[in-house]
Amino acid sequence: MSTAAFAPWLGLCRAAADEVRAALAEAPTRAERERSGGIGEGGDETAAVDTISEQIVARRLEALHHEGYDFILVSEELGMRSFGRNPARQVVLDPIDGSVNAKRSIPYYSLSVAVADGPTMGDVVFGFVHDFATGDEWTATSGGGAALNGRPLRTEAPKDPPEILALEATCTDLIAQRASSLIGLSERLRVLGSLALSLCHLAAGRVDGVCSLREIRSVDVAAAQLLVREQGLAIELASGEFLQAPLDLGRRSVVVAAASPSTCAQLALAVTS
Amino acid sequence: MSTAAFAPWLGLCRAAADEVRAALAEAPTRAERERSGGIGEGGDETAAVDTISEQIVARRLEALHHEGYDFILVSEELGMRSFGRNPARQVVLDPIDGSVNAKRSIPYYSLSVAVADGPTMGDVVFGFVHDFATGDEWTATSGGGAALNGRPLRTEAPKDPPEILALEATCTDLIAQRASSLIGLSERLRVLGSLALSLCHLAAGRVDGVCSLREIRSVDVAAAQLLVREQGLAIELASGEFLQAPLDLGRRSVVVAAASPSTCAQLALAVTS
Repeated sequence: MSTAAFAPWLGLCRAAADEVRAALAEAPTRAERERSGGIGEGGDETAAVDTISEQIVARRLEALHHEGYDFILVSEELGMRSFGRNPARQVVLDPIDGSVNAKRSIPYYSLSVAVADGPTMGDVVFGFVHDFATGDEWTATSGGGAALNGRPLRTEAPKDPPEILALEATCTDLIAQRASSLIGLSERLRVLGSLALSLCHLAAGRVDGVCSLREIRSVDVAAAQLLVREQGLAIELASGEFLQAPLDLGRRSVVVAAASPSTCAQLALAVTS
Repeated sequence: MSTAAFAPWLGLCRAAADEVRAALAEAPTRAERERSGGIGEGGDETAAVDTISEQIVARRLEALHHEGYDFILVSEELGMRSFGRNPARQVVLDPIDGSVNAKRSIPYYSLSVAVADGPTMGDVVFGFVHDFATGDEWTATSGGGAALNGRPLRTEAPKDPPEILALEATCTDLIAQRASSLIGLSERLRVLGSLALSLCHLAAGRVDGVCSLREIRSVDVAAAQLLVREQGLAIELASGEFLQAPLDLGRRSVVVAAASPSTCAQLALAVTS
């Protein structure tokens, strides 16, 4: 895909982010945001915030399909839905990454959209992550580099060995179980609550490593992983074969990312052994 | 102090926050922000970000003194400095709360300014916390309530028992040491990196508890604690006598805050025993 070929996707993502932001502003209270939106295809209970965001993006994707674009939509709540006949292209959507933060208005949650030429993580050619708290836009295109607010991301690399490690999957028992094995691997921890945003911060050298403490789904990382890889950094599943992971809703394994493959391997060992 | 009496302080804080924001934008890289600014009076090594912010606020305070305001400035890096003869009023400054985040551009750090009528925490009459990532302004006046961006904070109370607990003091070993004793007390953890901001989020019912894992100084909490107290929530030192804590640079004990004194007591026990 040429750079121009991404323009419709970037336009869609930006318009959707604006619309989601406006919709969230209409539902500022915890009671409104925590309201159930039903059980998603991924099996988790969906909050109103997720449903609102997903419906906005899905409506815009449907309009793009009517303009002649075919794709399979893979989304946390809607599941997999084909727009067109046997399209190779996949659009991978996490309508709100960091739902718990969004429900509570903790300012760290995002919209994540990836476009892929085929069915696996290695096929992702465009990634978009919008930070609803800061308004920052993180993007990447395959072979075209990563960008923050439209400008190429030319920042210091993450520190290796890590000074700051961001842990995702934020339950007290998981953190209690794993934190001691991380002593010596990273001086400090952050537990922020949006895996996609933490991967973007790794891409920008703001944190030095990212670990999920439980199995991730492809939708959680499809967009942000492209920023990490375009910056020449390492990302891997604890079970391996990250690039071969299908872009579906199945749970994979723990994901780790850092400046180097060797630090990734150390982190994976620490949080799975 | 009447509401009008706070106007000069609020004006100073707002102007200083704007100036600090502009100065930080001039030093966007990690190399610039991590540069040493020397050893502060509190004994910690100071980063350039802290020094830049402190000098901006101190210069504006000096100008206010020339307009006839007397006070003792208590600041993390400058120490205690008297402006006027034996003033009762104290101004308590944390130029950057969340220095590590500020140095790394992780979007969660703040400017914190408190004004007190006397020498202890219970004497604080005005609190101001500016979130540099979101631009949010958190304020409180003694008996006049708490506000977010100038509007009274009328939000849901924190959940009790807690669902989300924010831990501050972010070293891996401290978290490893304490997390297991928090299982059962809070379902989820956040480790965000600015104690002042996390207390503001507690005041707004966004998180349900806050624990520092190491001894705090008064400068760290003087402003934000007034928001917590004005919302009718509980805040205490593990060693007790929070309101009697002197507004100086000495290290006190662990601080805990939550919806109720009984939850505070449980948290204090969990992180100190």
